[in-house]
Amino acid sequence: MMAFVVRGRHLTQRARPLPKLRPGWALVRVRLAGICNTDLEILRGYHRFRGTPGHEFVGEVEEVRGAASAVRARWVGRRVVGEINIGCRALGHPRVCRYCRRGLRSHCDRRKVLGIVDHDGAFAEYLALPVENLHAVPASVSDEAAVFTEPLAAACQIAAQVDLPRFRSAAVLGDGKLGQLIARVLRLAGPRVVLFGKHGAKLAIARAAGIATARVTRKARALNELRNSFPLVVEATGSPAGLAFAQEIVAPRGTLVLKSTFHGAAPVETWPLVVKEIQAVGSRCGPFKKALALLHSRRVDPLPLISRSFALAEAPAAAVFAEKPGVLKVLLRP
Amino acid sequence: MMAFVVRGRHLTQRARPLPKLRPGWALVRVRLAGICNTDLEILRGYHRFRGTPGHEFVGEVEEVRGAASAVRARWVGRRVVGEINIGCRALGHPRVCRYCRRGLRSHCDRRKVLGIVDHDGAFAEYLALPVENLHAVPASVSDEAAVFTEPLAAACQIAAQVDLPRFRSAAVLGDGKLGQLIARVLRLAGPRVVLFGKHGAKLAIARAAGIATARVTRKARALNELRNSFPLVVEATGSPAGLAFAQEIVAPRGTLVLKSTFHGAAPVETWPLVVKEIQAVGSRCGPFKKALALLHSRRVDPLPLISRSFALAEAPAAAVFAEKPGVLKVLLRP
Repeated sequence: MMAFVVRGRHLTQRARPLPKLRPGWALVRVRLAGICNTDLEILRGYHRFRGTPGHEFVGEVEEVRGAASAVRARWVGRRVVGEINIGCRALGHPRVCRYCRRGLRSHCDRRKVLGIVDHDGAFAEYLALPVENLHAVPASVSDEAAVFTEPLAAACQIAAQVDLPRFRSAAVLGDGKLGQLIARVLRLAGPRVVLFGKHGAKLAIARAAGIATARVTRKARALNELRNSFPLVVEATGSPAGLAFAQEIVAPRGTLVLKSTFHGAAPVETWPLVVKEIQAVGSRCGPFKKALALLHSRRVDPLPLISRSFALAEAPAAAVFAEKPGVLKVLLRP
Repeated sequence: MMAFVVRGRHLTQRARPLPKLRPGWALVRVRLAGICNTDLEILRGYHRFRGTPGHEFVGEVEEVRGAASAVRARWVGRRVVGEINIGCRALGHPRVCRYCRRGLRSHCDRRKVLGIVDHDGAFAEYLALPVENLHAVPASVSDEAAVFTEPLAAACQIAAQVDLPRFRSAAVLGDGKLGQLIARVLRLAGPRVVLFGKHGAKLAIARAAGIATARVTRKARALNELRNSFPLVVEATGSPAGLAFAQEIVAPRGTLVLKSTFHGAAPVETWPLVVKEIQAVGSRCGPFKKALALLHSRRVDPLPLISRSFALAEAPAAAVFAEKPGVLKVLLRP
């Protein structure tokens, strides 16, 4: 099959055998994959990942190995999305870890992560995942919407960790793909949301969805009126400067949700967290069911976030395009 | 009166007039003052504070201005400790801020802070505080114990922010003055506590109080067995390296309490907070009543933490001594 692997700071095409299946695993033919900022970070060396990246996808199950025929009948031919954390049970470890026992596969001590940690991902014609990771996609949800399930679930995770309805207002920092989805999810949960960003075109897309926006300029960042003004701030800029700004505008005793995973140490002043007694909540992967429900009901419409689709064979050019200012989601179609 | 002020990186003696009292304020003769790491940070430029530092004290009320005679009768001659945050009501602002209205004087937008922000502190013969900040010291609590009320209250604040009994174990990072008090407070609340530090003599003092300790060495820090092993970690090292270590040993979905306020930006990797979905809680000033109750009941005995007392006139030498390795609390006696 055609697959792309990380080679230095670029994607390179390789002819690879189909992935081998463990018992209870499915072979998924990728219909559409999305490029996430984490993929771009991986190309900069994050996690020192060496295989096939890509963890946002929608695909079709071609085969299930070593499962009861009812399980095979349920999944083969199904259009699916898949959770990216593979826990120790599915990896065949004889003793299941304390996190997997609690259903927290995303924190398994020995997990592999699709396209991120030690398991080949979606920038290929096929991928393999345990059946327990799969979710069927309703017919009402197009491939172009379904491919957003993973990042939308990550946005929904905030609602699972923070009691959103108790906040009157929230600031989302970062007008990128994730910040856009987070702003849409937060708005549904109650708070008055302001999306802060640097890119006029991206902010215009948010405004078209009815979200209030604010352009972050040097001048605006100096504005005293923003200091201490939001009880809830979500940092999704992907840059160290975002954290400093977040600490500035969050109110004393406020809540700060951290969504950015950038590579390397950044110079950060942490004393505002202490002096303002901020509660900072790290937030990562989220509930696929909830994300699929939002796509099915069309309460979140991700389609305006698609900047461009490329054929899989054009993956290296797509990754370069995804880095350009003003570009949001870039898709790969095998 | 004799007072010491910050002059460059040192304390310098000055003859100053007695502090002026606003209505509802008390003149307090300082009986004993403690040197805190924040004072040492102030000498390094933190908060650009220019007056008299010192915010840990026990004293005697000499005068109360503009209060009912019952209030004066209650306080004059009393041995007291004092909360350090002065809210906008006591400062005479016509409109009380949203924090002071909620009783959160420590987060008042316009607060002054004894010996830290725009209000002269305890490294002097006298200081002034609003009567609402004062707490009477029970006769059972000596001056040497009472001078620990403020930092002990800061340790107790953790119990107000985090549901301690639900944690089976906790790591406290930092064998300094604050870390020592925190370890003592946490242990009373339930978790099995391990105090991590670098100084054999300081750790020995903790062990004498029945607290388990661990020496942080290069080797120990590399030990894989510490990774992800504590559901609760309190960072009280006063150094950026402490935050990195804390993120390493805290368990996924664990709680990380931040107590250190060091000056300047430190290079920190924040992605572990996100990937491990850690909840980080900034924690500052705490409940004086609870601290005084712990001292009165002798459930916490701070006296072994006193390294040395100096006459107030020796304050510059005392500050230099307080910086020495292995030294814990240094007191100043006017």
